[in-house]
Amino acid sequence: MAEAEALTEIWRGPFLESLHRGHAVICDASGDTQEVWGDAEKVILPRSSCKMLQALPLLESGAADAAGLTDEHLALACASHEGAAIHTERVARWLDDLGLSESDLRCGAHPPKDRAAKFALIRAGLAPSQLHNNCSGKHAGFLTLARHLGAGPEYIDPDHPVQKAVLAAFEAMTGETSPGHAFDGCSAPNFACTLTGLARAMARMAQAQDAVDGRDRAAARLVRAMTAHPELVAGEGKACTELMRAAAGRAAVKTGAEGVYVAILPDLKLGVALKIEDGATRASECSIAALLCRLGVLDAAHPATRRVMDAPVVNWRGMETGSIRPAPALR
Amino acid sequence: MAEAEALTEIWRGPFLESLHRGHAVICDASGDTQEVWGDAEKVILPRSSCKMLQALPLLESGAADAAGLTDEHLALACASHEGAAIHTERVARWLDDLGLSESDLRCGAHPPKDRAAKFALIRAGLAPSQLHNNCSGKHAGFLTLARHLGAGPEYIDPDHPVQKAVLAAFEAMTGETSPGHAFDGCSAPNFACTLTGLARAMARMAQAQDAVDGRDRAAARLVRAMTAHPELVAGEGKACTELMRAAAGRAAVKTGAEGVYVAILPDLKLGVALKIEDGATRASECSIAALLCRLGVLDAAHPATRRVMDAPVVNWRGMETGSIRPAPALR
Repeated sequence: MAEAEALTEIWRGPFLESLHRGHAVICDASGDTQEVWGDAEKVILPRSSCKMLQALPLLESGAADAAGLTDEHLALACASHEGAAIHTERVARWLDDLGLSESDLRCGAHPPKDRAAKFALIRAGLAPSQLHNNCSGKHAGFLTLARHLGAGPEYIDPDHPVQKAVLAAFEAMTGETSPGHAFDGCSAPNFACTLTGLARAMARMAQAQDAVDGRDRAAARLVRAMTAHPELVAGEGKACTELMRAAAGRAAVKTGAEGVYVAILPDLKLGVALKIEDGATRASECSIAALLCRLGVLDAAHPATRRVMDAPVVNWRGMETGSIRPAPALR
Repeated sequence: MAEAEALTEIWRGPFLESLHRGHAVICDASGDTQEVWGDAEKVILPRSSCKMLQALPLLESGAADAAGLTDEHLALACASHEGAAIHTERVARWLDDLGLSESDLRCGAHPPKDRAAKFALIRAGLAPSQLHNNCSGKHAGFLTLARHLGAGPEYIDPDHPVQKAVLAAFEAMTGETSPGHAFDGCSAPNFACTLTGLARAMARMAQAQDAVDGRDRAAARLVRAMTAHPELVAGEGKACTELMRAAAGRAAVKTGAEGVYVAILPDLKLGVALKIEDGATRASECSIAALLCRLGVLDAAHPATRRVMDAPVVNWRGMETGSIRPAPALR
């Protein structure tokens, strides 16, 4: 079992102030690894990085078509969104179209990360709703599937038909039997897998353009939805949105809590998965950008890439005090 | 050079989801180490953990007494405060008493972390001022010293008499020649040292109760000011404030950005310094609490200790999804 490897460096003046270690795998759909950093067999919780896998049953079951879902809905089902109006209004309409409401969600409420939405709530003296939860689109997808299956309202129960379908799709795509689950911030079960399993699943999403069966067609449609609507997958200024725009269709990328990041590369038919050992987002963003530059999918000089990969650290008076950089192993 | 050692674990369900490594030293005033984790000679930037050292010249020079500073002022000089009214009103009055104003500060402005203060600004449509900067008390101390020395207004310049005095005190207390500086978030130079150097400085602060010279008397007064006014050193609900209250005078503790934490233990005449390699505050808080429990200064069952050391991770619906725990090496 390889130790976590140095992936991202935090510099301040002439000093290497902090260091993020982690594990990363680039592999194809058969699970053959092209490159590995750290431990390819590391068991991780993919967190929100696997929302595309969690959305597969929504399509495969026919629930999405029956409900008339568009690519915008599907992008939101895969999203960790910022709770901006473009996200919350669409999820609210989606629930309304289902004959449901915000109270049918089981994701819990948290303040939106979108500044305008956050300030508007504070100024109005209003509490955030479950629509603001970054996972509300995923949960609207779960509710759509639950209704289609005629299943009960507690769709986050691991024994609920929705979660059983998610687990089946997750295991099929990762090519592994999941060693178990924990509960995510949004209360849905999050199934564990190896990092290679997660990268393999992403490679399968990547090669699904050549759709042969229902699952591949579902995967291809989700990838198209994400790359067509990057602003719905995260939000303005956020890494997922900006990196997908910079990659111009050559990559669908998704962050997950605790330092997880994945990339689906349809041109190369490759999948990438990484986990920062300590869970830091600044390092997962820098590391995924460095890997996509290595693979020729991102331009290192693009502003969106530089913002996360070669980012100056600027202090409260606008003074540049340091930088975030990929460690030598990723350069 | 020892590698960073596992210090804090993040669990989610049955999975060890993330891991924080770091370096820690417990030593006495001569620099003799009692216990070491990782690399005792690791060169670090102490960031805000060394505000007590940066405040020594304020007292030693006679500037504090000349300006009539109280223990409240001195606690604020050592603080990374939350920008609550109890902090900003006192710093504003301090500057006013000096015949200065907010615009004389050079720390820059950032939104207060205190929720009430933050919401009040947003509701009023006001921008945060430099008073809200967590370092505004330290900077008011610098300004007090600058005026006493008859020196110019750019007190954050490394060549300014204030910073030269800070460096001299810093090197004397750490017992080292600093290998250089970087600029802190508040634009002041932050001098580097080894982790043992920082722990030694804290041990010297700890044994300064038996004051023999001006520097020791200054150190003892700062420690008294911090433990007498923990609410001014950080803020309600913050680790420094709550842990000092829990230690009931047996420890003065101070956090620094990028995962630094120090403790001054007057009863034991020991100093503690730790640096989380990846810079995470959740890990520095958990690790310092674990070390203080080990040393018998904190009660592991105290709510303030448990909040950072054995803390349940609770999600947006109030479901307990995991926990933050000290790694085996610290238990």
